[in-house]
Amino acid sequence: MSTRGAPDYRRTVPIATPELTPGPFLHARALVRPVDPAVGLEGEAHHCRLTKPRGALGRIEDLGCRLSAIAGSVPPPVPSPAAVGIFAGDHGVVEAGVTPWPQEVTAQMVANFVGGGAAINVIARQVGASVTVVDVGVAADLADVDGIEHHNVVRGTANLAEAPALTFTQLGDALDVGALVATQLVAGGAALLVTGEMGIGNTTPSAAIIAALLGVPAANVTGRGTGIDDEMLHHKIDVIDTAVSRLGTDPHVLTVLAAVGGAEIVALVGFITGGAAAGVPVVIDGVIAGAALLAASQLCPDVVGYCFAGHRSTEPGASAVLDRLGLTPILDLGMRLGEGSGACLAVPVLEAAARVMQEMATFDSAGVVEKA
Amino acid sequence: MSTRGAPDYRRTVPIATPELTPGPFLHARALVRPVDPAVGLEGEAHHCRLTKPRGALGRIEDLGCRLSAIAGSVPPPVPSPAAVGIFAGDHGVVEAGVTPWPQEVTAQMVANFVGGGAAINVIARQVGASVTVVDVGVAADLADVDGIEHHNVVRGTANLAEAPALTFTQLGDALDVGALVATQLVAGGAALLVTGEMGIGNTTPSAAIIAALLGVPAANVTGRGTGIDDEMLHHKIDVIDTAVSRLGTDPHVLTVLAAVGGAEIVALVGFITGGAAAGVPVVIDGVIAGAALLAASQLCPDVVGYCFAGHRSTEPGASAVLDRLGLTPILDLGMRLGEGSGACLAVPVLEAAARVMQEMATFDSAGVVEKA
Repeated sequence: MSTRGAPDYRRTVPIATPELTPGPFLHARALVRPVDPAVGLEGEAHHCRLTKPRGALGRIEDLGCRLSAIAGSVPPPVPSPAAVGIFAGDHGVVEAGVTPWPQEVTAQMVANFVGGGAAINVIARQVGASVTVVDVGVAADLADVDGIEHHNVVRGTANLAEAPALTFTQLGDALDVGALVATQLVAGGAALLVTGEMGIGNTTPSAAIIAALLGVPAANVTGRGTGIDDEMLHHKIDVIDTAVSRLGTDPHVLTVLAAVGGAEIVALVGFITGGAAAGVPVVIDGVIAGAALLAASQLCPDVVGYCFAGHRSTEPGASAVLDRLGLTPILDLGMRLGEGSGACLAVPVLEAAARVMQEMATFDSAGVVEKA
Repeated sequence: MSTRGAPDYRRTVPIATPELTPGPFLHARALVRPVDPAVGLEGEAHHCRLTKPRGALGRIEDLGCRLSAIAGSVPPPVPSPAAVGIFAGDHGVVEAGVTPWPQEVTAQMVANFVGGGAAINVIARQVGASVTVVDVGVAADLADVDGIEHHNVVRGTANLAEAPALTFTQLGDALDVGALVATQLVAGGAALLVTGEMGIGNTTPSAAIIAALLGVPAANVTGRGTGIDDEMLHHKIDVIDTAVSRLGTDPHVLTVLAAVGGAEIVALVGFITGGAAAGVPVVIDGVIAGAALLAASQLCPDVVGYCFAGHRSTEPGASAVLDRLGLTPILDLGMRLGEGSGACLAVPVLEAAARVMQEMATFDSAGVVEKA
C-alpha cells in the first residue's frame, strides 16, 4: 500500500504532450474571448455617479466592474440564475493511505446530492442556484442512479503513486464532459456557473497538480483535506513529491493532468473553459477547483478574466493558486468542504454587485448633492 | 467654526449619570436574557452528525451554533425575513469642519431610501429584507415625508465640539425610539434585525463614543469616514480628543452618549437592545453601529450574545469594538458606506448557517459511512 519504498511504477509516465481530439473542449477553448478592460473602466465611472461616496462599497465595486467587463455592458446584467456543476470521481491514490475516508463515500455522497441532503444542496437552495451532479469518474457503477448526468470516463483513476492517473483518452474525454456540461447549463438559462466536485482523496491529486504547475514543493501546497493527522499529512506530502518528481521540470499541463490528475478535476478544467466560452462568470470553490483553474489558465489564459474566487479555502494550495492568478476571494469563512459550498455562498454577493450598478440612483436622478 | 482654539463650551457637560425614565428602552433592557451556551454546544454535537467532515464548514458552523444559542433550539429556525432599521440624524459637529458633505445630504438620502435608490435598498432587495427608515434626529423638517417613521427627538444635535450633543431628555427619547422600532419590527414578523443609519458627520460622534468607552486616543479609532483628506482627518481627531477629554476618566456610558453621541446612534443602542429583548439575532453594520453596540454592551452586557458583526468596516473604530467584544465579522469586503449595507449583505450567510442545520442529512439518514 505505502509508496514510501520503491514504487511499483509499472506504466510509463506520459512525458509527451497529449494530443487533444476535436470536441467540446477544444471548441470551447477556441471561443473564449478576453474580457474587455475598457468596459470595466466604464463601470468604475458609472460607480462614481451613484449615490454614495466614491469607493465606499469597497470590493463590491470591483466585483461589479469585473462583471461589466465580462458582460461587455455597464451596468452588467444580474448573473442569475446560478448553476452548480458537481463533478464526481474516484482516485486510485486512496490505496496509498492519504485519507481516512473509504472510497465508497463518493458514491454515497452522489446519492446524498440527488436526495438534496448535502451541504451544497442546502446552500444552493438558499441562494437560488440549481445543482447538476455529473458522474465523470466514480468507481462504483452508477448507471442505474437517476437524477445525475451519466458521463463516466473512468471507474476511478489509477493510483498516481504508482502509475499515471488517467490515460490520454480519459483525459480528453473528461475535458469534453466538463465543457459540454457548462455549455448545456448556459443553454438552459444559467447566467453564472459554480464549480463543484466530490471525490474521496481528491485533495491529493489537486495538490499534486498545483505543486507541478507552480514548481513548488508539495509541503507548500498540501493541506489536511477532510482533517487528517500529522502522520498522514507527511505521508501525503511524500506521495505527492514522489509523483511530481517523475514529471521532470516544466512539464506540460496536459502531461501533469494525465499523470497526477483526476477525472472530476479535469472535467472542471473543461467546465471553467466552457463557462468562459459562453461568456458567463464562473465562481471557483476551493483547492480542487483551484487546481483546475490553474490548469485551465495554462491551456487558455483568457479564462481567468471570467473567474471569481468564491472563498478562501483553508487548504494552502487554494491560496497559492489565487495568489498566482491575482484573484482575491470574496468570502473567508474557514471553509474546506468542497462540493462547491464556499463558491455557492458567494453568489448573492456577486448578484448584489451587479444589482447595485443596475438599480442604484445617481446623484442627479436622486437630487442628492455631492461633497464640496 | 474651528475648535482648534479655546472652545465656546457654553453648556455644562453632563457629568452626572442621566436618569432614564420608564419606557420602551428600560422595558426591553429588563427583558434581555443571556443566550444559552448549552444549546450552542448541542448545536456543535448536531453538526458532527451531518454529512461532512467535522468542522469543514468552518465559521458557518460557529454561526449556526450561535443562532442555536439565541433561539434556544437545535436546529435553529432560519432567521428570515430580515428587517433593516435605518435611523437618520444630523450632527452639529459638521460646523466644526469634520466632513466635506453638506448636512442637507442626510435628508436627501432619506428621500433616496424612500425612493428605493440607495445601496441599502438594492442590497435589501437582493437578500429579501425589508427597509424601515426612521427620522430620529434629522435637522430638516421631514413631517411631510411619506414612507418613513416619524420619531424626531432633535432637529440635529448640538455641536459636540462646543456643548453636549444631546440633552438627557433627547437621549432617553432616542433610546426609546430604537427599542420601540425593534419591538414593532419583530412583532410584524421580522426574525432578524439589521442596523442601518444615515447622518452626515456621524463617524465623528461614533469615534468619540468608542474612544471614550475604550479609553483610547481618538487617533486609534478615527477613520476617514466618507473619504476625507489628511488635514481634515487630523482636525477630526483633535475635535474628538478635545470633546472626550472633557468627560474625565471612566465616564458613565449614558454621560458619553449625551455629550458626544447622536440621535441615530443612541436609537441604535435601543434598537440592538430591543432586538435582543425580542430574542432575535441582530446584525451590526460598521463603525456607527459598532459605537452603539459598545454602548449597549455596557448598559446590558447580555445583548452581545444576540449580535453578529456583519462585516469588517474599513473604519478603525469598528475593528476596535469587535476586538473588544470578541466578535469576528462575517464579511470583509472593504466596505465603508454605512446605511446597513455591509450587515445586510451578510444576511444570506446567516440564513445558510441555520438552513444547513435544518436541512442537511445526517450520516445515518443518508447512509453515508464515516471516516475510519
